[in-house]
Amino acid sequence: MAKGLQTREAADPLARLLDEAGMAAAPDEIHALVRGVAAAPPGIEPEAWLGLLPSPPAPALKETLLALEAEARVAFAAERHAAATPERLAALRAELASLRLDGFLVPRADEHQGEYVPRAANRLAWLTGFTGSAGLAIVLKEKAAIFVDGRYTLQVREQVATDRFTPLHLTEDPPHAWLKAALKPGARIGFDPWLFTPSGLKPFARACKEAGAALVPGAANPVDRVWQDRPPSPISPVRVHDLCFAGEAGEAKRKRIAAALDDADAVFLSQPDSIAWLLNVRGGDLSHTPLPLSFALLYADASLDWFIDPRKVNAETKAHLGPGVRVRERTALLETLGGLGGRQRTVLLDPATTPVAVDAALRERGAVIRNGMDPCALPKACKNETELAGMRAAHRRDGAALTRFLALLDREGPKGGLTEISAADALEGFRRENEHFRGLSFPTISGAGAHGAIVHYRVTPETDARIAPDLLYLVDSGAQYLDGTTDVTRTVAIGAPTAEQRDRFTRVLKGHIALARARFPEGTAGSQLDALARAALWEGGLDYDHGTGHGVGSYLGVHEGPQRISKRADSVALRPGMILSDEPGYYETDAYGIRIESLVVVRREKSPPVLGFEVLTLAPIDRALIEKNLLDEEETAWLDAYHRRVFEALSPLLDASTKAWLQSVTAPL
Amino acid sequence: MAKGLQTREAADPLARLLDEAGMAAAPDEIHALVRGVAAAPPGIEPEAWLGLLPSPPAPALKETLLALEAEARVAFAAERHAAATPERLAALRAELASLRLDGFLVPRADEHQGEYVPRAANRLAWLTGFTGSAGLAIVLKEKAAIFVDGRYTLQVREQVATDRFTPLHLTEDPPHAWLKAALKPGARIGFDPWLFTPSGLKPFARACKEAGAALVPGAANPVDRVWQDRPPSPISPVRVHDLCFAGEAGEAKRKRIAAALDDADAVFLSQPDSIAWLLNVRGGDLSHTPLPLSFALLYADASLDWFIDPRKVNAETKAHLGPGVRVRERTALLETLGGLGGRQRTVLLDPATTPVAVDAALRERGAVIRNGMDPCALPKACKNETELAGMRAAHRRDGAALTRFLALLDREGPKGGLTEISAADALEGFRRENEHFRGLSFPTISGAGAHGAIVHYRVTPETDARIAPDLLYLVDSGAQYLDGTTDVTRTVAIGAPTAEQRDRFTRVLKGHIALARARFPEGTAGSQLDALARAALWEGGLDYDHGTGHGVGSYLGVHEGPQRISKRADSVALRPGMILSDEPGYYETDAYGIRIESLVVVRREKSPPVLGFEVLTLAPIDRALIEKNLLDEEETAWLDAYHRRVFEALSPLLDASTKAWLQSVTAPL
Repeated sequence: MAKGLQTREAADPLARLLDEAGMAAAPDEIHALVRGVAAAPPGIEPEAWLGLLPSPPAPALKETLLALEAEARVAFAAERHAAATPERLAALRAELASLRLDGFLVPRADEHQGEYVPRAANRLAWLTGFTGSAGLAIVLKEKAAIFVDGRYTLQVREQVATDRFTPLHLTEDPPHAWLKAALKPGARIGFDPWLFTPSGLKPFARACKEAGAALVPGAANPVDRVWQDRPPSPISPVRVHDLCFAGEAGEAKRKRIAAALDDADAVFLSQPDSIAWLLNVRGGDLSHTPLPLSFALLYADASLDWFIDPRKVNAETKAHLGPGVRVRERTALLETLGGLGGRQRTVLLDPATTPVAVDAALRERGAVIRNGMDPCALPKACKNETELAGMRAAHRRDGAALTRFLALLDREGPKGGLTEISAADALEGFRRENEHFRGLSFPTISGAGAHGAIVHYRVTPETDARIAPDLLYLVDSGAQYLDGTTDVTRTVAIGAPTAEQRDRFTRVLKGHIALARARFPEGTAGSQLDALARAALWEGGLDYDHGTGHGVGSYLGVHEGPQRISKRADSVALRPGMILSDEPGYYETDAYGIRIESLVVVRREKSPPVLGFEVLTLAPIDRALIEKNLLDEEETAWLDAYHRRVFEALSPLLDASTKAWLQSVTAPL
Repeated sequence: MAKGLQTREAADPLARLLDEAGMAAAPDEIHALVRGVAAAPPGIEPEAWLGLLPSPPAPALKETLLALEAEARVAFAAERHAAATPERLAALRAELASLRLDGFLVPRADEHQGEYVPRAANRLAWLTGFTGSAGLAIVLKEKAAIFVDGRYTLQVREQVATDRFTPLHLTEDPPHAWLKAALKPGARIGFDPWLFTPSGLKPFARACKEAGAALVPGAANPVDRVWQDRPPSPISPVRVHDLCFAGEAGEAKRKRIAAALDDADAVFLSQPDSIAWLLNVRGGDLSHTPLPLSFALLYADASLDWFIDPRKVNAETKAHLGPGVRVRERTALLETLGGLGGRQRTVLLDPATTPVAVDAALRERGAVIRNGMDPCALPKACKNETELAGMRAAHRRDGAALTRFLALLDREGPKGGLTEISAADALEGFRRENEHFRGLSFPTISGAGAHGAIVHYRVTPETDARIAPDLLYLVDSGAQYLDGTTDVTRTVAIGAPTAEQRDRFTRVLKGHIALARARFPEGTAGSQLDALARAALWEGGLDYDHGTGHGVGSYLGVHEGPQRISKRADSVALRPGMILSDEPGYYETDAYGIRIESLVVVRREKSPPVLGFEVLTLAPIDRALIEKNLLDEEETAWLDAYHRRVFEALSPLLDASTKAWLQSVTAPL
């Protein structure tokens, strides 16, 4: 931890500069702001947070503030890379003893159950060293275990001291079963009610009950009490999401959702992407997903209490929100919920995402709970015409950047001069040049050879492999643009592919085409279509162990619900305007990976008026990997038409040589 | 009601004959037996029940007994056809008043929740006149309603006096919502706890709770108390299902299921088909399904209490069952359940099929309930090699009978001499000649022209249409054989079909083939495959409003679970040995109906070792209805190979002219 952030003496120059600027802010407040800013990802406009100051800073003050921010970032990064020492576990156990707890649950979750969590919420990483995106530790007096899913069984053993935390499989050795077996009657197990949902807590509650133990919610998280120099919650400016991108005013959305509440008096919104969609705002509290972290209560009269750190919300945003939206401190949430209970209001909440703390506060004070799906989820998933136009435009720019990269890869790949990291950087560089670029929508998966078979591969300097002839290279990447979010995977043969690779690639392509061409009636759920993408692989006794399609937001999360296409039974009907990925794959462990991913949007066909998909993604599919005999006439015609469309859409955006390259690789089969 | 069945005077000749025969049975007992026998379907061996007598009757006694049975059958039939008079509803309301009930629920269900119910259990038909296979009436003081599903919206208006019972749609106007709206606080609504399951009762319990009303289980069903001359429960002899058909001894099955009970002490079995499968017995209490109605408790030591009318079980059956199976009176059930509770046993039961009365009796006496799927369901669904060999043999004989019929139809149909009824009778006649024939597996759907578009069409003398040129004829039929159960649909063009009919038929055929050819990995559920059967129709903006496949038993129910293929999300994995129908269709209301149905069995393919289907059904598919241009090469090859197989399998069973006909209609496309 940098000295300057904690001692008053070091803050003195800041105080002097603030005085000189006539800024009515205490140095402590500014220090807290800077620390919050440093706890957020830097974003592509690293100085934008200065707009959160009471007035624009003079050069000297600005320089001091940016230096302080940089210092704090270094400190957080150092703390993040510090080992999860035995002392941390010992300190937590001592804290638990002082709270008369026999154990504690440490999930990799924040209050919003999101895919990305801010530094301050990654208690699991602090305690165990595990940095994966899902997992849970249980700490008991004598032993502890960490539970991760199949993606992370190797990683957990590399990152975690297994003498302190027994690594177990999240579904094969479920944590609640482990807990039940370990518990003695009378034991008291603590949990943080902000980090569990009613649905998620159920198996633990049952396990404790059956073991005669008590599951005890705590007022403060004991991990936080022993986490020295824990980063603060991130502070990144909230930005207005312009109507020219959103297509519907926030007030209209609030009225629409409020009107659909039936007899409920309010709905509690726990999902930052629902709130961002509803209010037409974006933010930068998390990596890759342009969200401000917040909660909200929307009332039947369409007014809204927005519980968010007010320091993030400047005057322009407040003016945009209008009088129907009250910006309130996060600390005012429980009191407001209590007030609803006192008046016996009916409150809608989603038991899959709402914190237990919120559910309990409402119940205790007498509110009537109605469980239901987040009412923003479906309207947000069904993009309007403005959002779709934005998505199409973003995909043209993104496709041009990817095409420039694929041309580079075709030229340089066989020479062996590129590595996984330099390739990913080159691709990011092309994207950065695009209008409205705001960042990557997820860390690029850049996998050469056997790395391509690791579905969630994330290249590091230690694993960075050379891209060279006689391997397949898989690149799964995407970007956030103001007008849309992209996510695309292409697999390319460097040198000559094997017959097996061509066979597998063509089966994956047949599945990709079958799904893209599907037509289906209203009411059809994604799980009903999943087999179309797998049938050609199944026929050969092959398959892939991930979903076929996930929902995608509009300059929001690259993963969003409620729609999906997977083996898992679901009953969410696909509706016009929903965006999904179409990404079958095939993985030969230790050898190669294949995935073909484009985003598609559900639309109503003209004749017959059934539902079908429009492919949004525009990028060539490697013809060198296609075994032409395996495609039927209709599949070949589909591919040729797609490639013609790719060329027509992208060529105006390309330089002459890239255009010529694209023309050659999109020629008919 | 025939006099002889009630007065002692008329029974005198019987008493004398019994005396003469030296039979140690009181005339009252014999009369009760005869009435029970008459309440069961006649079956194909109408005199078999005489084997339930203490000793074989002499000719005079036999003649008297058969005459008494015939008399009782006439009486029951007359009662069945009697109108559901206003007096019946008035009598029920008076009875409810005497019980201080404000209303009563009358489902079309018996204690086993089966598709077919015995006469005595069809209280809904007695009260309302509605004879459909699903529905529910709610009788309140001032009003009453009957709820039926989409299949029966027309029929209910024809059969039911709508001034007494408001006809409503079971899912669009759900009965619990209607009840909730109609109830006043403090009201008491009665129900028969034998006719509802815990799962089925839930919405009514919630509705009553929310309305401040009480839902009251009754000891005796008030409908039964006012139903004059209500038939008794059916009595049909239990028959041993020979090991050469069953393939696994009952004792082995009991041990297998008992071993899978985990920590439960017993499982309550409410499903007559599960019990028949487990004990290797069959019966005749219901139409079309060879089942004895019974309950059972299987214990962890593999012994079993079988709660069944002991009059159905003769000495041979008892010897077959062995010492591990105790035949007990139905009336002993509650007491036995109470005993389990007294010893705090854990009892497994299926909340989707167990009567509330059983669940409540166990809970009240302190048993621990573990909810789970009927443990016989999956083992029963996965046929063993003996059962599969029997199914294949049964399908050859059945296919030959159907082929004889289709040849007749081809010859006589265009002449206009056949009607829907005479055609169905002819088909049944061919089947009756088959070895091991035990009856039809469901009432034949014989639909000419527009009748084919009525998915559950049941021809009556009033609707009996002529089969004549320029229409499509759809016949959906099946039989029960000792070695297997069949269910097959073929659609035939009489005269020349239209281009539209050929297009629709070919799309249905493409779906049928796509499903039959599917290969898929372990763990795949039927709902994942459903779209394969619909894709060709969906592409044309077409669909069918029923499931694609249902499970089929082995000389058991023609509809069995847990496997199915439908749009409805499910997670039951298809396993080797499961039999399903593959029956896509297309229906043009008021014009024509198309369905192609074969049974298939899930089997493991040799290479690659994935799962796939073997088609069991052997019958030609009308080539005159195929638009050849719509089939791709692989589909054409599949059809030609199927037809070749049909000809090779059936031709040895056919006379020369039918064989020649089959050869011509199974020639390659």
